[in-house]
Amino acid sequence: MKNINSIKKVVLAYSGGLDTSIIISWLKENYNCEVIAVVGNVGQKDELIGLEEKALKTGASKCYIEDLTDEFVNDYIFPTIKAGAVYEGKYLLGTSFARPIIAKRLVEIAIKEGADAIAHGCTGKGNDQVRFELAVKAFAPDMKIIAPWRIWDIKSREEEIEYALERKIPISISYETNYSKDKNLWHLSHEGLDLEDPANEPKYDKILEMCNTLENAPDNPSYIKLKFEKGIPVELNEEKLDGVTLIEKLNKIGGENAIGIIDMVENRLVGMKSRGVYETPGGTILYKAHKDLEEICLDKETAHYKQQVALKFADLVYNGQWFTPLREALSAFIDKTQETVTGEITLKLYKGNIINAGMTSPYSLYSEEYATFGEDAVYNQNDSSGFINLFGLPITVKAKMEEKLKKGDK
Amino acid sequence: MKNINSIKKVVLAYSGGLDTSIIISWLKENYNCEVIAVVGNVGQKDELIGLEEKALKTGASKCYIEDLTDEFVNDYIFPTIKAGAVYEGKYLLGTSFARPIIAKRLVEIAIKEGADAIAHGCTGKGNDQVRFELAVKAFAPDMKIIAPWRIWDIKSREEEIEYALERKIPISISYETNYSKDKNLWHLSHEGLDLEDPANEPKYDKILEMCNTLENAPDNPSYIKLKFEKGIPVELNEEKLDGVTLIEKLNKIGGENAIGIIDMVENRLVGMKSRGVYETPGGTILYKAHKDLEEICLDKETAHYKQQVALKFADLVYNGQWFTPLREALSAFIDKTQETVTGEITLKLYKGNIINAGMTSPYSLYSEEYATFGEDAVYNQNDSSGFINLFGLPITVKAKMEEKLKKGDK
Amino acid sequence: MKNINSIKKVVLAYSGGLDTSIIISWLKENYNCEVIAVVGNVGQKDELIGLEEKALKTGASKCYIEDLTDEFVNDYIFPTIKAGAVYEGKYLLGTSFARPIIAKRLVEIAIKEGADAIAHGCTGKGNDQVRFELAVKAFAPDMKIIAPWRIWDIKSREEEIEYALERKIPISISYETNYSKDKNLWHLSHEGLDLEDPANEPKYDKILEMCNTLENAPDNPSYIKLKFEKGIPVELNEEKLDGVTLIEKLNKIGGENAIGIIDMVENRLVGMKSRGVYETPGGTILYKAHKDLEEICLDKETAHYKQQVALKFADLVYNGQWFTPLREALSAFIDKTQETVTGEITLKLYKGNIINAGMTSPYSLYSEEYATFGEDAVYNQNDSSGFINLFGLPITVKAKMEEKLKKGDK
Amino acid sequence: MKNINSIKKVVLAYSGGLDTSIIISWLKENYNCEVIAVVGNVGQKDELIGLEEKALKTGASKCYIEDLTDEFVNDYIFPTIKAGAVYEGKYLLGTSFARPIIAKRLVEIAIKEGADAIAHGCTGKGNDQVRFELAVKAFAPDMKIIAPWRIWDIKSREEEIEYALERKIPISISYETNYSKDKNLWHLSHEGLDLEDPANEPKYDKILEMCNTLENAPDNPSYIKLKFEKGIPVELNEEKLDGVTLIEKLNKIGGENAIGIIDMVENRLVGMKSRGVYETPGGTILYKAHKDLEEICLDKETAHYKQQVALKFADLVYNGQWFTPLREALSAFIDKTQETVTGEITLKLYKGNIINAGMTSPYSLYSEEYATFGEDAVYNQNDSSGFINLFGLPITVKAKMEEKLKKGDK
Repeated sequence: MKNINSIKKVVLAYSGGLDTSIIISWLKENYNCEVIAVVGNVGQKDELIGLEEKALKTGASKCYIEDLTDEFVNDYIFPTIKAGAVYEGKYLLGTSFARPIIAKRLVEIAIKEGADAIAHGCTGKGNDQVRFELAVKAFAPDMKIIAPWRIWDIKSREEEIEYALERKIPISISYETNYSKDKNLWHLSHEGLDLEDPANEPKYDKILEMCNTLENAPDNPSYIKLKFEKGIPVELNEEKLDGVTLIEKLNKIGGENAIGIIDMVENRLVGMKSRGVYETPGGTILYKAHKDLEEICLDKETAHYKQQVALKFADLVYNGQWFTPLREALSAFIDKTQETVTGEITLKLYKGNIINAGMTSPYSLYSEEYATFGEDAVYNQNDSSGFINLFGLPITVKAKMEEKLKKGDK
Repeated sequence: MKNINSIKKVVLAYSGGLDTSIIISWLKENYNCEVIAVVGNVGQKDELIGLEEKALKTGASKCYIEDLTDEFVNDYIFPTIKAGAVYEGKYLLGTSFARPIIAKRLVEIAIKEGADAIAHGCTGKGNDQVRFELAVKAFAPDMKIIAPWRIWDIKSREEEIEYALERKIPISISYETNYSKDKNLWHLSHEGLDLEDPANEPKYDKILEMCNTLENAPDNPSYIKLKFEKGIPVELNEEKLDGVTLIEKLNKIGGENAIGIIDMVENRLVGMKSRGVYETPGGTILYKAHKDLEEICLDKETAHYKQQVALKFADLVYNGQWFTPLREALSAFIDKTQETVTGEITLKLYKGNIINAGMTSPYSLYSEEYATFGEDAVYNQNDSSGFINLFGLPITVKAKMEEKLKKGDK
Repeated sequence: MKNINSIKKVVLAYSGGLDTSIIISWLKENYNCEVIAVVGNVGQKDELIGLEEKALKTGASKCYIEDLTDEFVNDYIFPTIKAGAVYEGKYLLGTSFARPIIAKRLVEIAIKEGADAIAHGCTGKGNDQVRFELAVKAFAPDMKIIAPWRIWDIKSREEEIEYALERKIPISISYETNYSKDKNLWHLSHEGLDLEDPANEPKYDKILEMCNTLENAPDNPSYIKLKFEKGIPVELNEEKLDGVTLIEKLNKIGGENAIGIIDMVENRLVGMKSRGVYETPGGTILYKAHKDLEEICLDKETAHYKQQVALKFADLVYNGQWFTPLREALSAFIDKTQETVTGEITLKLYKGNIINAGMTSPYSLYSEEYATFGEDAVYNQNDSSGFINLFGLPITVKAKMEEKLKKGDK
Repeated sequence: MKNINSIKKVVLAYSGGLDTSIIISWLKENYNCEVIAVVGNVGQKDELIGLEEKALKTGASKCYIEDLTDEFVNDYIFPTIKAGAVYEGKYLLGTSFARPIIAKRLVEIAIKEGADAIAHGCTGKGNDQVRFELAVKAFAPDMKIIAPWRIWDIKSREEEIEYALERKIPISISYETNYSKDKNLWHLSHEGLDLEDPANEPKYDKILEMCNTLENAPDNPSYIKLKFEKGIPVELNEEKLDGVTLIEKLNKIGGENAIGIIDMVENRLVGMKSRGVYETPGGTILYKAHKDLEEICLDKETAHYKQQVALKFADLVYNGQWFTPLREALSAFIDKTQETVTGEITLKLYKGNIINAGMTSPYSLYSEEYATFGEDAVYNQNDSSGFINLFGLPITVKAKMEEKLKKGDK
């Protein structure tokens, strides 16, 4: 392991926010090292503007802005949709799977640049530090990792600002407190302030950015049509779209209709509960559409077992265990199940609701012949009698054992 | 096993509908037996009016109308809410758990009356026949069960009507086709007709009875407050209520706000898929409230494991395996987890949406001290570093093994 | 569906035993049809001798003897070893996975021959009828299946013999009763007679055929060495062997050392319990070797999750659900996990015991550096302290909540 | 949290071995505090002799020797047998469940004595530190825990001895290196030395203490008879025995017959793999007897689900999560399943093998009537046909869908 003195070059996961701005200074001050800022573009959009200039001004020797959006959608988001993975029944993992992809690129750049360490601005109380660092370990097990929040004496936002002012670090924040946010193509999360007490109703009109409030959503529904191929959305309203564009369009229309607003108290990996509000408009539509399509495309045994796999998959993603043999093996399972998840579904979006307005699939296992209440030729109702007798045989045997016991007792 | 000739008295699960009306005649005609009609009141309300008179007129020698509503709520509905059991991610099991309770009472009456057999009007293609018969087997393993739909030559509603007319059975139905429905305190289900093609959007304005359509729901939200004790709802809006009344009130307000409308293609136990629309307004509110409260009252390991148990519990209930050792053992697990699920939650109901507007619990494991982004005393951020190193050790070891392998290859 | 009259040609799963011998006659008598006997060679060895002649003599128009041994090992046995699937903790599925492969070939021959139906000699109380028929349905969903034991009036072995004698069917059995057996490359099963009472100790000296009794096994141990590649055994004692030969050799040496004798009461798919004794000498060695090797080749999360998958995989195989999407998807999961299950293991075989006598793998995740009790450089013991604090945080938070509650109570 | 200066009295988990002997000195030297030694007697037997005298001589102000054997058996061992919990398919958790009970008593004494901290001698690389500390947190979340191995500079056994010699701490160890052992009523574990390389065959003749080697076990089998009530062993050879005595007797006879020797590479909670040899003679007999009895006493669905619960239960016990809501809720599940696990079983013990020599239960669900190959009255073989058709319906529907697709392709 490298000791402090040997650290000459650090690659920093840079966002341009307060934290990583002062970390550049702090690293240079404490390690006397060069700092290379790396921004992973996973769809933060406007948050990316001016980042390179800012990083250099703040003391970075170089700034990489890496467009990871396509890879993010195809290799992280889509596999998770296919899994149907939802953390604790609510959270669509928007931040969770953004960390591994960024960390992986950090390692690549660190190796290319011959850096001695990787640094990040994650707090010591959250999940993101784990997600970042596990991904780093997966690709560079001996890489030194620097997590200033776990080391320095700064304890709060106020002290950060003070630190910046003292050193004349050009920061453009106001003293106005704000929710802690994480934004990418898939979602926007909000934590902190009044949300820290679960007794408080979230002030949605102040919080929401991607979504309308339910009340402000249009009074008329929007209809959309999605096409999936092998579990992956490929068309919106009969237009073939790449994943990034498709999600952006769904975010827009979903957000308008107030789709995908979640409020939850979740269990962090590091042992405490936290409360957050998430906006995932497009993602929520995709999950719903995919799940419904699976209802006709998957047989019962597969669908039921996949529910359990989804729980585990969600845990792994949430915990930052993306680059692990188990996640990869579960993905192999899931991909196999998705071979027939192909079809079209129409959805009605209306004031927070997504209503299935009809779906079809060439692989549909729904068979009107079997299901109908009317006359049918294919199904022999008498079969049920044998089925029930054998399916219920353990119940019969047990009831008889009990009868015998009771008689014996007399 | 009894042979046909020995059947002198049959207890019939009677609903007053077309099916069970003609079954009375059919049983008497084919077995030359006495038929006792038994109605299990699980909250069908208006469907119960005039049933006794009708049964006797149609040929029953006696008609029992059994009020099972309290038992239904306390011994079937509440245990299932506590489990958080949802079949295939959507169905709140409204019909599923109504069958065992009715069948149990049928057996009790059959034994009291010295009946030779129990009959029901379930079709040979559905789940209900299984649920009825498994429950009968659990309490009377040698009881003869007669399921006319699996025996007789009648193949359709039309033929039933013909059969009734020929025998002058007083039936009060029109030729107008209608959805197949099942109603009780907890829900109302709809199957058949245009719903039999999943490509069709349900005509909600024609289908819904308990619920407003989303569009017709009020433009202003309703706020309600629920109190749970050990996982069971005990108060609505600060009024202590018995379970039946509480659910009725929630059905009313939930229905007004278009809560709890589900459209799904489900996998029946007997092997085929079927499509149904369910209205469960009060139930949907209770599930949401209970789930959210668990977020603060259950620790992570318990909550995550319970998700898996809920999947199995739902399968058992759906499959009619209520009176089985596994269902009982799972309930023992669940009851243990519910000891601290006590607290209050306020909900905003608005056009199909249920929004958590604040919750509290004396057993809350949410700790602002630990969760806060601000300065804190209780949590040592440095602990994370050790945690991550050990949690990630398998990843490190694997990455090093791979490095070694690669070097060896050269 | 074909009616009886249209059945002109039947393909029969033929074993040459009493059952299938009289079934040839019975089919011809009752359907007036041609009967083609098909024997699936899955390693029954001596049971195959003279089968063709016998089939023709008994009335078959043709007799196929299909060598399925290689396919049996590579496509059925090895995937199940890789899964580590054991039914109810004991049964290595020897009969279970032999049925699908035979049924698949039956369908292929039935189609080639233009047969109208497939017949088998399985009893109506067992699992094999299900396994056969599910496999037939998977490849020929409309194929008529004839299961004489579920139709005819013959109720016992005695009546079968009588039936044969009346028709002068050349059978070579004695009246001596015997255990019901099923033999193939993988195992030999025994059921019936005194085994039908679980209170009886099996008379192993009379029952065992593949294995010595424990007492008769040699007093000196045998050492063997196995090499696995991606979860599949490829070498025995440094000799590269095809799967069939390898299993045969292991059966011999395992049998000598009384390895792999199992006595169990199992739960059949069709609802009742049954008791059987199984001999699986080579298979037991392979399972043990594979499991031990996985201990060093798989990481903990994968290994633990795979334990659960193994339970499901075993159920599917036992239930005859080999040709189902879920079995295939689970195999995709398993194959992914096996990519690093490569290595060598030495085993000592001694009087029923298999002792691991050392193993190595290039992919070993066991790291002496980390595990050692001696001095080490790679592991910072201080990390544990942080790990324990966070891993135990939910316990701390709960204990504090309870303390607060108690104080509040005073 | 207490700071170092405020620590005036420490309660130490004392074993009398080298580690805890020098820890007494080290604590007094570093904290200038009183040290109270506490020994939890969980059946270490001869290891307990002279401990009090030794502790006082080594500097402890007091020494508690707490007899926890009955509680250990009834509240920790028996619940785990009932669960059928085995870690990673092999380990019977002998050390795992001994830690929580000792820690619980440590807390009780610490509170009674007004101690400021609890200390233990567990290494920073193992599981035991976690198990100890989680149990402490459960009962005293604010108690200071001192783990010298994670703090001091001593890095090896050699340095420990040096430390002792320098301070004239009366230790009675030789320089002879030895396996690291943990002994209690339930088992004896061995780690270290040549075992640290999984390529080495264990030198059983040098290692084993509770058990004969297989080769030295008697040439004649021993038969024993066990009676269980609700999953708990209550009689051996028709003699009613308390749990401690019963296990001791089973250890003796099991050990003679070389029962219960396990060699494994296990995954520690703290992230690395380790290799150990375990002797659990009596425990292995009890697990086998209990499992076999469950085969006739539990219905299939319960038995299968319990297999999964056992996996989780084993993880929790192994991880030291005994005092958690999930472990308690799983125990509620298990206890419910054990209500009918009552009966008698005879076992033959012979050279490492345990052979079921017959079992009976008043609650047996094994029914010869149903299982028999002979004629029977209770089971209608024709029922199978309906069962198979419905159980296989998803396969049929899928096969037909595929046929349709293929036709469509042409």
